[in-house]
Amino acid sequence: MAYSSVSDEVVEEFNPKKEEKEGSILEVGDQAVWSLSSCKAGFGIDQLRDDSTDTYWQSDGQLPHLVNIQFRKKTTIQNIWIFADYKADESYTPSRISVRAGTGFSDLQEVEVIELNEPNGWIAIPLKDAQDKYIRTFMLQLAVLSNHQSGRDTHLRNYSDLEEKICTPDQLHPKPETSALVFGKYFTDHMLEVSWDSEKGWAKPVISPMHNLQLHPGAKVLHYAIELFEGMKAYRGEDGRLRLFRPDRNMARMLNTAKRSSLPTFDANEMIQCIKRLIQIDRDWIPHSTTSSLYIRPTLIGTDPSLGVASPNQALLYVLLCPVGPYFTSGFKPISLLADPQYVRAWPGGCGAMKMGANYAPTIYIQKQSELLGHQQVLWLYGEDHQLTEVGTMNIFVFMMNKAGERELVTPPLEGLILPGVTRLSLLELAREWKEFRVVERTITMAEVVEAHAENRILEIFGAGTACVVCPISSISYQGRELNIPRSESSLSERFFKTMSDIHYGRLQHPWAVDIE
Amino acid sequence: MAYSSVSDEVVEEFNPKKEEKEGSILEVGDQAVWSLSSCKAGFGIDQLRDDSTDTYWQSDGQLPHLVNIQFRKKTTIQNIWIFADYKADESYTPSRISVRAGTGFSDLQEVEVIELNEPNGWIAIPLKDAQDKYIRTFMLQLAVLSNHQSGRDTHLRNYSDLEEKICTPDQLHPKPETSALVFGKYFTDHMLEVSWDSEKGWAKPVISPMHNLQLHPGAKVLHYAIELFEGMKAYRGEDGRLRLFRPDRNMARMLNTAKRSSLPTFDANEMIQCIKRLIQIDRDWIPHSTTSSLYIRPTLIGTDPSLGVASPNQALLYVLLCPVGPYFTSGFKPISLLADPQYVRAWPGGCGAMKMGANYAPTIYIQKQSELLGHQQVLWLYGEDHQLTEVGTMNIFVFMMNKAGERELVTPPLEGLILPGVTRLSLLELAREWKEFRVVERTITMAEVVEAHAENRILEIFGAGTACVVCPISSISYQGRELNIPRSESSLSERFFKTMSDIHYGRLQHPWAVDIE
Repeated sequence: MAYSSVSDEVVEEFNPKKEEKEGSILEVGDQAVWSLSSCKAGFGIDQLRDDSTDTYWQSDGQLPHLVNIQFRKKTTIQNIWIFADYKADESYTPSRISVRAGTGFSDLQEVEVIELNEPNGWIAIPLKDAQDKYIRTFMLQLAVLSNHQSGRDTHLRNYSDLEEKICTPDQLHPKPETSALVFGKYFTDHMLEVSWDSEKGWAKPVISPMHNLQLHPGAKVLHYAIELFEGMKAYRGEDGRLRLFRPDRNMARMLNTAKRSSLPTFDANEMIQCIKRLIQIDRDWIPHSTTSSLYIRPTLIGTDPSLGVASPNQALLYVLLCPVGPYFTSGFKPISLLADPQYVRAWPGGCGAMKMGANYAPTIYIQKQSELLGHQQVLWLYGEDHQLTEVGTMNIFVFMMNKAGERELVTPPLEGLILPGVTRLSLLELAREWKEFRVVERTITMAEVVEAHAENRILEIFGAGTACVVCPISSISYQGRELNIPRSESSLSERFFKTMSDIHYGRLQHPWAVDIE
Repeated sequence: MAYSSVSDEVVEEFNPKKEEKEGSILEVGDQAVWSLSSCKAGFGIDQLRDDSTDTYWQSDGQLPHLVNIQFRKKTTIQNIWIFADYKADESYTPSRISVRAGTGFSDLQEVEVIELNEPNGWIAIPLKDAQDKYIRTFMLQLAVLSNHQSGRDTHLRNYSDLEEKICTPDQLHPKPETSALVFGKYFTDHMLEVSWDSEKGWAKPVISPMHNLQLHPGAKVLHYAIELFEGMKAYRGEDGRLRLFRPDRNMARMLNTAKRSSLPTFDANEMIQCIKRLIQIDRDWIPHSTTSSLYIRPTLIGTDPSLGVASPNQALLYVLLCPVGPYFTSGFKPISLLADPQYVRAWPGGCGAMKMGANYAPTIYIQKQSELLGHQQVLWLYGEDHQLTEVGTMNIFVFMMNKAGERELVTPPLEGLILPGVTRLSLLELAREWKEFRVVERTITMAEVVEAHAENRILEIFGAGTACVVCPISSISYQGRELNIPRSESSLSERFFKTMSDIHYGRLQHPWAVDIE
């Protein structure tokens, strides 16, 4: 192993081990991976690039290979350069190398699959996600993808295999009044289930009457929280058509969380087809109201009955539907927050960016304590500088005048501490389209909020999430002080809410709204 | 509300809110709590104590009351002083005030219950746990305890209510060979279950044949990881008697975790009686071997079928039994560790000291990655100074020569980042009894380990936990270096293992070993 740095930016390169176990089956994300005997690979980062290959780190070891770079100061990466050359052994012919990159395990994702029937040599892979980000660490993982379909089948079986067991009329439940809807309390008549096994892969999807799950009491989900979920909505438009909102985004996040949770991945499109069919069957449960909707809860749990702390060999993916009423029954009701730096929701090196069950259990006691102190939600801070991260289970937005006198919409960046919300993304995209004020993803601290508040530069603060779309904030209790947040007559949060509602209920034709039928 | 500081140590005192909602039902831990109209309470910390009461913070508001103190520098607390005086309203006569103290929510625990029929005035409460600790934050919570037994009944119904449904002969399962035992794979014939409901409290305990659980797919445990567990063991001694090891310690930890998880608490002694009875019924499953044992898995899950992120109103406590073989089949097998500071198991303000399911899910992918890199376990580091915290799911011990040339056994302190292991505690107590070397609970960093290793001052490093008792470590891979850890002929870890085994299997009479029959 040789490493020649042409830049003092790189201070450390560690982790590559010379002796990988040959022939052992390893798992990287959702793919079966073999380490091979006759493999050579190398990589470079654009800052290191010059014309001689010896400026690159090269591995004469085997794949999979994991490399970890730390930079002396924050830097950007435009491209990585990959070189791979190997000869397959007799029993097995791999054809592709998966290239995964990120700033660490928590955001490691596939950026390229190199087909090995292409000519060899250095290949530049642009890192779209990284190009406008300053990072301090970079992780690269190369893995041989198998042609052989292993038990860790990435494909949910085809939607065309879907089996339907529809309720008999006496099995149907009465539908609650729209006015009586409480979040997550009422479920529709049917559910979707797909079971998975590391040997057999995914079984065929089944829609059947809502029923209890039969779980072994030793099931991993009940002991080690091997579980994840998603939250998305379907709407009945003013034109009577049913629509989903950006389901591709929820499925992409679900797949990311599944990888980090050692749970199996699946084909997002097939899954969306199955969910659409479930909604069609229970379509009468979608409220005839442009303030209500159908909440969709895809869930994935590890089910094998064994107490070893290890990745699951059995899993169950299921989808529940809940009719839900308006989050605010009469207009917006701003909420008050407790911001106490001693309670920390997520931390670097953890899973704060993942929709894992494990992120929620620890928050419930703190949420109760904030209620005990007279507040409605917790504003989660992080670090010695008290960075704003999330509010309750929502992303947070601060709309303010900056010191240069410009209006600026600020939300914390996606650097591993916060959940990449689909509503968050949509509001950012809308605001950037409007081009009426600055839109910035950056760290924002309580000191900055306190200062801007004192100088009357805070215009609005609001949360954003699937349940409420936007949720205005009336006050923040911080270090014994109560910061009262102003609300203007025609607020940005209300404009966001109206635009999003127009898309949800079909008043505004928009590619984010996906027809169900 | 008046606050007069007589010390510049205290820099901040926040959180008390003047307007508590009168008459609302609040929950503090496991007790029903009322806030009352005519209540007065005050407290002081020993540093603040002088003879006039106006040097204390006093609340003329209502209970429960939560106070948070931050010190300018780390300090110790010997006693807190509590003053409480109030007049009950007509409908309800409270009789006791619960005093809970800690450095934050994560370790807040009841230190005293003040009986209100005692004479009023200032009462000094010694803080045994805090007296040798330097802390930076202090939290105090006062709450009125109800005489009225609410739905949040703290008592598991009496062991005497236990209902037994014993397997018919054809329901009994064949027992695996002791040599074939894999951790957590085989379960005995029976299980214990006790269900809980916020209205009705605990139902009666039931022992019945091992069976699948019927769970609503919206059950909170499956979405928000509202779940916790314990791990303890029963042993068949050389004298044929069955023994538990320090079950009171496991039950105390389970109760702590339950409080932090917003799950119901119960009477530890009644629970131990129920577990003993379960073991008696399945006693034939305990291996006739002094290297094997019966692993006991008490589990508590939130079961109510509602997707709100809130504390559960329904729960199920159950206990499973697994015969387990020797952790090391042929003597000790030292393991190799990956120590990479980018993976963080727990963090201040989190739940690392709790045995919640949520602490385990995020570790599995990292554990797999460490295996991919050729290591057996992860050495979890924390902070910029790379403090050692845990190894895999065990506590860690470093036995070394310190710079003064003394032998020193070091293990990280219980400050919220690590699990308070029962084996950890037992090894510390044994070593302190032996008085042969220094025994220290303190922060230890990788820099210190690297330096001591370079100077040949590391004697041994080992993990400690219920599964293996002790687990020697052969190497630590850290920042590209491989630290090989020495093993002596007659090691401390083997001596610990032998002493613990002697207690487990009745060769050494010891109060830690509790007879089952």
